[in-house]
Amino acid sequence: MVAPRVYEAMAKPVVGHLDPFFFQVNEEIRAGLQQVFGTQNPFTLALSGTGSAGMEAAVTNFVEPGSKFLVFANGYFCDRLTEMGIRQEANVVRIEKPWGQKVSDEEAAEAIHREKPQVVAFVHGETSTGVSNPGHAIAKAAREVDALTIADCVTSLGTMPINLDAVGLDIAYSCTQKGMSCPPGLAPITCSPRAMDRLRARKSPQRTWYLDLKLLSEYYDGAHRYHHTAPISMFYALREGIALILDEGVEARFERHRQNAAKLTAGLEAMGLEMLVPAENRMWALHTPKVPAGVSDLEVRKKLMERHGIEILGGFGPLAGQVFRIGLMGEGSQSAHVDMLLGALKEAL
Amino acid sequence: MVAPRVYEAMAKPVVGHLDPFFFQVNEEIRAGLQQVFGTQNPFTLALSGTGSAGMEAAVTNFVEPGSKFLVFANGYFCDRLTEMGIRQEANVVRIEKPWGQKVSDEEAAEAIHREKPQVVAFVHGETSTGVSNPGHAIAKAAREVDALTIADCVTSLGTMPINLDAVGLDIAYSCTQKGMSCPPGLAPITCSPRAMDRLRARKSPQRTWYLDLKLLSEYYDGAHRYHHTAPISMFYALREGIALILDEGVEARFERHRQNAAKLTAGLEAMGLEMLVPAENRMWALHTPKVPAGVSDLEVRKKLMERHGIEILGGFGPLAGQVFRIGLMGEGSQSAHVDMLLGALKEAL
Repeated sequence: MVAPRVYEAMAKPVVGHLDPFFFQVNEEIRAGLQQVFGTQNPFTLALSGTGSAGMEAAVTNFVEPGSKFLVFANGYFCDRLTEMGIRQEANVVRIEKPWGQKVSDEEAAEAIHREKPQVVAFVHGETSTGVSNPGHAIAKAAREVDALTIADCVTSLGTMPINLDAVGLDIAYSCTQKGMSCPPGLAPITCSPRAMDRLRARKSPQRTWYLDLKLLSEYYDGAHRYHHTAPISMFYALREGIALILDEGVEARFERHRQNAAKLTAGLEAMGLEMLVPAENRMWALHTPKVPAGVSDLEVRKKLMERHGIEILGGFGPLAGQVFRIGLMGEGSQSAHVDMLLGALKEAL
Repeated sequence: MVAPRVYEAMAKPVVGHLDPFFFQVNEEIRAGLQQVFGTQNPFTLALSGTGSAGMEAAVTNFVEPGSKFLVFANGYFCDRLTEMGIRQEANVVRIEKPWGQKVSDEEAAEAIHREKPQVVAFVHGETSTGVSNPGHAIAKAAREVDALTIADCVTSLGTMPINLDAVGLDIAYSCTQKGMSCPPGLAPITCSPRAMDRLRARKSPQRTWYLDLKLLSEYYDGAHRYHHTAPISMFYALREGIALILDEGVEARFERHRQNAAKLTAGLEAMGLEMLVPAENRMWALHTPKVPAGVSDLEVRKKLMERHGIEILGGFGPLAGQVFRIGLMGEGSQSAHVDMLLGALKEAL
């Protein structure tokens, strides 16, 4: 769901890629993203691509050929991180958990100390399973072995606290749809000064030019050295989406997500549905009740769509047919939506 | 300049990245781009990045590490192609001409036959100089040595014929602003079946995942295998921009650009200004009269902006202070604009 104000912002006249107004818009975006990510990183901006471009920027800039890249793998997007690491010719080490589970703090610390990677990646909010990992243990261990951490926040940004600086994460990226409630089009990204120092000291050639964060830093910061022509209209949209978040208040927004998530889960459990993910590991934006035995998830979802115009998703990969995936994110996380969904789902089941 | 219809299209509600409506929009874009590029290439689509992402896709997909990449260099964007080739660890060979000049057909053929590269790149319409190169001699010689050709059409698409298939070019990319008169946000690209065969046979690992044309082909064509979430609103804009082009007629649009270019050039020459580029090598979208001796281009441009609200650009790189760069592209290529500019420029000079 995208607010009308955001759509209206997109229809405003474009300006040139070196227009002072564009850089002013960009500064407002930077300040807003810093609040939502929970960081003071000066290098915080929106890349000119969608969420997966954020992932590609994180991996291609920081994971060098031949370096060790440790991926905590427990869902679809961890596999994508793995694939991108392989394409950078890194030595990718995967610490695996079944989809829906989460590595424990002890396991995470042990793996990082054993493998001593240069870069560690994990998914902060995994859309394929509903699992959230705040990353405290990962960030702590990574700093102990002087590794950088990458956190995939595509589904968590704007829906729950990330507290990037407090947790000690180095690099995080997201998208503009989902929790940010804008149309897709940009990839918010933030990098710690420590990560940027590492990038500036990088010896092996940077393979991407379009997503080269050093060049982007020279364009967006200070000298505004021409790099590429950014999708100005999407920047207008993101600025407006961020304004909506700040109007509500970042903490109030997280609390709204938390409350609606709790209400949904309580309602599902009252209906006799079991949640895939233990309470302490759940995201606030995406919920995965198990499909009851003997029930076709496809039929239930079809009924919800046809009778009520409600779209929920099914599981895929190892979870195909086993869970529903219910999104309550950004503008969509509303108490009335929870009531509507619970009523409709009860009927459909 | 962006037409109101295009802005309005962008404000329409987004749909999901696997929604049949999105793929329908995409098919309309494909059909329209085929007409504007002058091609029947089935692989014709819009990448989820701006024009430079099109360049990066062309180079990273088709220029393999260790391969020979021949770049015809006579302006700023040739240098960017060179840089991207180096980042792919290709053996980059540059055939240089001063900015504003063009390699002759004989020189092009001779260089290609001598160097026998795997891939040849040139800029079809060079924004930094106003030079156009239709590429006939390059394409012919490239096929003779079994090389692929890449044509940068960022400023030429929608403003003059490219005739991709008739000329025999393999890969071309562009942007959505400039000649297409949409906001920036996507990179139209087209690849010949010959190029796609070469890509499928590629042995060295593909380093980009986000711009991997094989994966994108699996997403947009046939099976719609999930790849990334595209910036839907920008697709709406491009569909509308293409509809405007088809309403006018592709040939009529080119002819409008040709006529306004001729009118502008005649007016500039009548004013005593000399054009940098010989008549036979000029683009129809971007014009580069020389700055008369003793005139400050910065002061002239300031006057145009302050007194008339007209923005023209100066030269840069080797042409800094030596030329004006006057854009007449897409919606902006109007006879009345030519009159207004000529009057204002006369006064300012």
